[in-house]
Amino acid sequence: MMATLQQLADLVCGEVCGDPDLDIYRVAPIDKAQEGDITFVANPKYLALLGKCQASAVILTSGVDAPGMNLIVCKNPYLAFAKILTLLQVPERQVKGIIPGAWVAESADVDKLATVYPGCVVGERVKIGAGTTLYPGVVLYDDVIIGEDCVLHAKSVVREGCRLGDRVILQPASIIGSDGFGFAPDGSGYYKIPQVGIVVLEDDVEIGSNSCVDRAALGETRIQRGTKLDNLVQIAHNVVVGEDCILVSQSGIAGSTRVGNHCTFGGQAAIAGHLKVGDNVMIGGRGGATNDVASNQILSGLPLMPHKQWLRATMTLPKLPEMRKEMKQMKKRLEELEALLQEK
Amino acid sequence: MMATLQQLADLVCGEVCGDPDLDIYRVAPIDKAQEGDITFVANPKYLALLGKCQASAVILTSGVDAPGMNLIVCKNPYLAFAKILTLLQVPERQVKGIIPGAWVAESADVDKLATVYPGCVVGERVKIGAGTTLYPGVVLYDDVIIGEDCVLHAKSVVREGCRLGDRVILQPASIIGSDGFGFAPDGSGYYKIPQVGIVVLEDDVEIGSNSCVDRAALGETRIQRGTKLDNLVQIAHNVVVGEDCILVSQSGIAGSTRVGNHCTFGGQAAIAGHLKVGDNVMIGGRGGATNDVASNQILSGLPLMPHKQWLRATMTLPKLPEMRKEMKQMKKRLEELEALLQEK
Amino acid sequence: MMATLQQLADLVCGEVCGDPDLDIYRVAPIDKAQEGDITFVANPKYLALLGKCQASAVILTSGVDAPGMNLIVCKNPYLAFAKILTLLQVPERQVKGIIPGAWVAESADVDKLATVYPGCVVGERVKIGAGTTLYPGVVLYDDVIIGEDCVLHAKSVVREGCRLGDRVILQPASIIGSDGFGFAPDGSGYYKIPQVGIVVLEDDVEIGSNSCVDRAALGETRIQRGTKLDNLVQIAHNVVVGEDCILVSQSGIAGSTRVGNHCTFGGQAAIAGHLKVGDNVMIGGRGGATNDVASNQILSGLPLMPHKQWLRATMTLPKLPEMRKEMKQMKKRLEELEALLQEK
Repeated sequence: MMATLQQLADLVCGEVCGDPDLDIYRVAPIDKAQEGDITFVANPKYLALLGKCQASAVILTSGVDAPGMNLIVCKNPYLAFAKILTLLQVPERQVKGIIPGAWVAESADVDKLATVYPGCVVGERVKIGAGTTLYPGVVLYDDVIIGEDCVLHAKSVVREGCRLGDRVILQPASIIGSDGFGFAPDGSGYYKIPQVGIVVLEDDVEIGSNSCVDRAALGETRIQRGTKLDNLVQIAHNVVVGEDCILVSQSGIAGSTRVGNHCTFGGQAAIAGHLKVGDNVMIGGRGGATNDVASNQILSGLPLMPHKQWLRATMTLPKLPEMRKEMKQMKKRLEELEALLQEK
Repeated sequence: MMATLQQLADLVCGEVCGDPDLDIYRVAPIDKAQEGDITFVANPKYLALLGKCQASAVILTSGVDAPGMNLIVCKNPYLAFAKILTLLQVPERQVKGIIPGAWVAESADVDKLATVYPGCVVGERVKIGAGTTLYPGVVLYDDVIIGEDCVLHAKSVVREGCRLGDRVILQPASIIGSDGFGFAPDGSGYYKIPQVGIVVLEDDVEIGSNSCVDRAALGETRIQRGTKLDNLVQIAHNVVVGEDCILVSQSGIAGSTRVGNHCTFGGQAAIAGHLKVGDNVMIGGRGGATNDVASNQILSGLPLMPHKQWLRATMTLPKLPEMRKEMKQMKKRLEELEALLQEK
Repeated sequence: MMATLQQLADLVCGEVCGDPDLDIYRVAPIDKAQEGDITFVANPKYLALLGKCQASAVILTSGVDAPGMNLIVCKNPYLAFAKILTLLQVPERQVKGIIPGAWVAESADVDKLATVYPGCVVGERVKIGAGTTLYPGVVLYDDVIIGEDCVLHAKSVVREGCRLGDRVILQPASIIGSDGFGFAPDGSGYYKIPQVGIVVLEDDVEIGSNSCVDRAALGETRIQRGTKLDNLVQIAHNVVVGEDCILVSQSGIAGSTRVGNHCTFGGQAAIAGHLKVGDNVMIGGRGGATNDVASNQILSGLPLMPHKQWLRATMTLPKLPEMRKEMKQMKKRLEELEALLQEK
């Protein structure tokens, strides 16, 4: 793909500063960009590299001085970069239908505009919408419903009865609808609680590689519209995650917890079971929620505390042994003073 | 499936309170249950919902007041719920034999009453017992032995020579017998230690999605009868986990550690290598064992400490900066006192 | 395989002490070894078992007293064990070509000396080198390049355009080249940043089961020569990991971080994004880097501190509540003293 600087500026509601007819072929990082490339600066940390930058054009926010360079000036350079990159370098997915080497049950209803690669197995009564692609080795158990324009990457699995909305993306080996982890002690060992519920992934959800969303014991586990899970994330049974949440890699949510909208959980963060987390909650990397969390907070640590307090607390941590030693000395001095005063 | 209240009570050794001939069709959560449903209350937290409950019947423990409702009163409502749910809503797995689209080596011995779905690959000399189901895309390397009534979900892998007992469940993409992580520095880099041992999963073991049990370097890695692993759990080479243990999601056990019976490790908990953990040890979420652990303890934290002590310690953590500040003030006051006394 | 003690000693540059013509058939752990076996002691902890050892021969370092036993004495018994184990017990991988049941695109270039098992899917223009084995169910997207003598275990996935060097090992279900986790808020939700870069795994890299190495947004994510990843490890987009690093299970590195050579990160350790970590950095289990890390350090904790300091700090942690209590008492005593002195 190729486009002029003006076309790209129009795409991102930005303004051209320089030559509007310049041809742009590719997007490149600021330190690698060559002629024909457009690059961007979203993080001010990288502004220093502008001087040596060889790109034909740069996407910037207003107020940055870049004399002599061809610019697209816009409100959100990162978003503009993403949109331009999509236009220039993301090939359209081709519709190929059901390719020989895929096993599709006769009772399945696969749209003519869907693509199913070899090695896929599509169970009884499955529905697959138009524009959806199943890469090699995807397995859909019986009664699964997949919406339109979804991308299910290689080795992803959706178990019986689970439902995906439109534009859902499953990265390779993401597992939707495996059994929730429920066992009842029966005196001699554990009796398996059947997990007869389902998982619902709403529109525009993305699930990372090797991440797991367990089916509900009863009812459903639900990930709401627009929420994104990174790799190796665990969502236990009967969890509800609200809209537009971000769960970074290796984080996990235990059973029956309900998370509100616009929450962000850092890497390796964990939320215990049966909790309620409000809206706009940000939990730092490795934070751990063991109680309900009210809306509109930035928290870290285990137990959770305001992020700034956590920074101070953990900064003090290395000084603990020294503090303890000092306390002993102070205690001794205190005793000496007390003895001295008693004498007097 | 359908059953009368009396039949269900008999199944769980409970007593009917109300109409024994009532027809029950489904199990439902207390806030969703309708006519024809049975529900249960195991957690007293949910007793308050009984008033509005629309279920035809409720499973309760004795001593709960529920006037006018049809009840099954029994010792363990959670276990009773599980058994009734299994009876009413878990369809029997059908025997389908080797379905076209599965590759099974000629030397493999697959019982007539087993089911092998398309996309499965069964290696040389593999044995698969009666009643076992391999969902699509399961791979069994050469010389694997699988017992009876096992369920291997889509994409699970069992590598060469590993052995599964009876009624073992592998959730999707659980990996049994991958190489243990062993390397010897050889001066210029790392030399791979061959991992020629196996993994043994005893009867009634369940392994979660995307969990890994590594094969032994020599000898075997063993998970004993009845132990359950949640999703994304790591078991390193030569580990032995005893009977009826519960390993919650994202926990891990490092190489050569031996864990006793009836242990429970919370989410993201970790056990270092070459340790011995006794029986009936409960380690809280994100707890970390760096030394041997004696039996019959409830522990948390890194380093591990009694759970109650950990609760107190972590509650104090946010106050550390304030404590440090206060200590400095006290020190100053102490110095002033000392000076004052010297003057006198 | 079988070899004489002398042949084995020659292989590992060691010296025989005892009968050089002794036939050795297998390697076994010290407590299980029988006649015909060779065993080894690398960890002095296990020397006590030598007395009861029934092995025909033992690999030891010099300076250990083992009267009457047949020995190979060498500098590095662990490395010697690994080499002898490889010779005696690791069967050579057979070349089988493209086995029926594999789907290989016509435009793919698969070396005659490679092996592709059933259930594999090899995309357009893929290149696979001599001696490489794809176990069942491997998926290579279009334009992937795989070097010589690689082993790709069942269910591993390499997405479009990614490149593997020679002797790379992918354990089952390791995922190379899934989309990096990048989204730009667009006011109403998140806009997906296309991830159009690739992953490069250099020679002798090994990736564990269910581990993920994400493709770059632009450019490449790179794991350099000889580096080994354990199971369930997360490598985010645009990360560079140097040579001969060891990343233990469930550890993770966030986006755009650069790690030097010869680093070792313990289990569940985490490195935040956009950092630089030097050479020879060892981070203990569950350590967390939130700032750049200079070379040649052994660190632990969150925030990172020298490992010994961390040991002391965490040892003090359980005493925090007691310290706090004591501080309050001291404060009271201080106040009493001050009052007393004011009176005087």
